[in-house]
Amino acid sequence: MRHPDEIERLIRQFAKLPGLGSRSARRIVVDMLKKKHELMTPLANMMLEVAANVRSCRLCGNLDVDDTCHICADERRDKSLICVVEEVADIWAIERTAAYKGLYHVLGGALSAIAGVGPDQLNVQGLIKRIGSNDIKEVILATSSTLEGQATAHYVAESLQDPDIRITRLAQGMPIGGELDYLDEGTLGAAIKLRQLT
Amino acid sequence: MRHPDEIERLIRQFAKLPGLGSRSARRIVVDMLKKKHELMTPLANMMLEVAANVRSCRLCGNLDVDDTCHICADERRDKSLICVVEEVADIWAIERTAAYKGLYHVLGGALSAIAGVGPDQLNVQGLIKRIGSNDIKEVILATSSTLEGQATAHYVAESLQDPDIRITRLAQGMPIGGELDYLDEGTLGAAIKLRQLT
Repeated sequence: MRHPDEIERLIRQFAKLPGLGSRSARRIVVDMLKKKHELMTPLANMMLEVAANVRSCRLCGNLDVDDTCHICADERRDKSLICVVEEVADIWAIERTAAYKGLYHVLGGALSAIAGVGPDQLNVQGLIKRIGSNDIKEVILATSSTLEGQATAHYVAESLQDPDIRITRLAQGMPIGGELDYLDEGTLGAAIKLRQLT
Repeated sequence: MRHPDEIERLIRQFAKLPGLGSRSARRIVVDMLKKKHELMTPLANMMLEVAANVRSCRLCGNLDVDDTCHICADERRDKSLICVVEEVADIWAIERTAAYKGLYHVLGGALSAIAGVGPDQLNVQGLIKRIGSNDIKEVILATSSTLEGQATAHYVAESLQDPDIRITRLAQGMPIGGELDYLDEGTLGAAIKLRQLT
C-alpha cells in the first residue's frame, strides 16, 4: 500500500475533473492535506453549498441560484435576441466582453459522433418553443469554431424554420493581437475569404 | 454580475490549488455543476472525510489514518535507514519504485529565500531526535535536484553531526529512456562528471 485508500480514492476522483490527470490530482490533494482547515474543509463545504443551491434556469439553461436566472430576469436585456451557446461557461465568456445585451440559450453540448452526442441530447426543442412563444428577431449561433460546433450550428439553423428570424453566427477571422505569421492556415484562410471593408 | 457569487467564490477557491488558474478552475466548476449528484457532492463529502481522518505520522510526517503510519509500523522495513524527503508525495513516489525498504522523514518543504522558508519551518530537529534515539546507519538525502533542494540537503547534512552515520544522496545522471540530444546541459554535464563503471 502506497498511501491510505481514502487518499487514493480522493486522488482518483480529482483526476476525473477536466484538465487534471493523476499527477496533478495527487499534487492538489497533497496541497489540500497540508492546509486541511484553511483550504480543504472550507472548499468542500463551499462545494456542498453550491451543489445544493445552484440550479439551471428553466428558460435558458444558465446556472443561478434562482429558477429564472439573472439574465432572463433582467428587464434591461434585449429580449428579441437569443444567443445560442454550447455550455454555460460560454455565457460567462460572452458576458465578460460586455458586447452583448440579449438573452441566451444553452444547448448543453455540441453534436459529436465520437462523444456519442446526438440531437436528442441537446436542448433544441426548448429553443424552438422559446422562439415560438416570444417575439424573437435574431438568433445568434455562438457555437465553437470546431467541426462539432459547426455541425451543431448547422443543425440548429435547419431546425429553426421561421423565415422572419435572422440567423447569424459569430464572425470568423484573425484574433485581436494575432500575428499573421503565427496563425494556422484555417484561420488565415477564413480571414482572407471573409475579409471586411474598412 | 457574470454568474452567481457562490460560483465565483468556488472558482476563485479552486484557482488557488496548485497547477490551476482561473480558466482551468472555471472549467472544473462548470463540469462539476453538470454532474452535481454523481461528482460534486460525493467529491465534497470525500474531501470532508479525508480532512477529518487523515493525520501526520508522529514519527516521520507521512500522512495516514493512524498516528503511526503504515510504513513506520511495518516490522519488515529496515529501521536502520532513513530517507529524508521534502514532501509526503515524495514518499509515495519512492514507494512506487519498490526500490527502498527503509523508513522516511518528511521535512515539510525545502529551504527557499523566495518562498520565505527558513530552517525553522523544516522538521530537522525531529530528524536529529529520531537519529539520536534509534540505531540509524544511513540517512539518504532525497531532496529535489533543484537549487532549493540542494541547499536543503546541504543544511540537513551539516545538522547531522554523528560520524557513525553514512549520509548519502540520490544519484544524479541521465533519466532512464532519456536521449542525449534532448537532455539539458546541467543533467548531461552531471552524467559525464559522475560517470559510473560498467
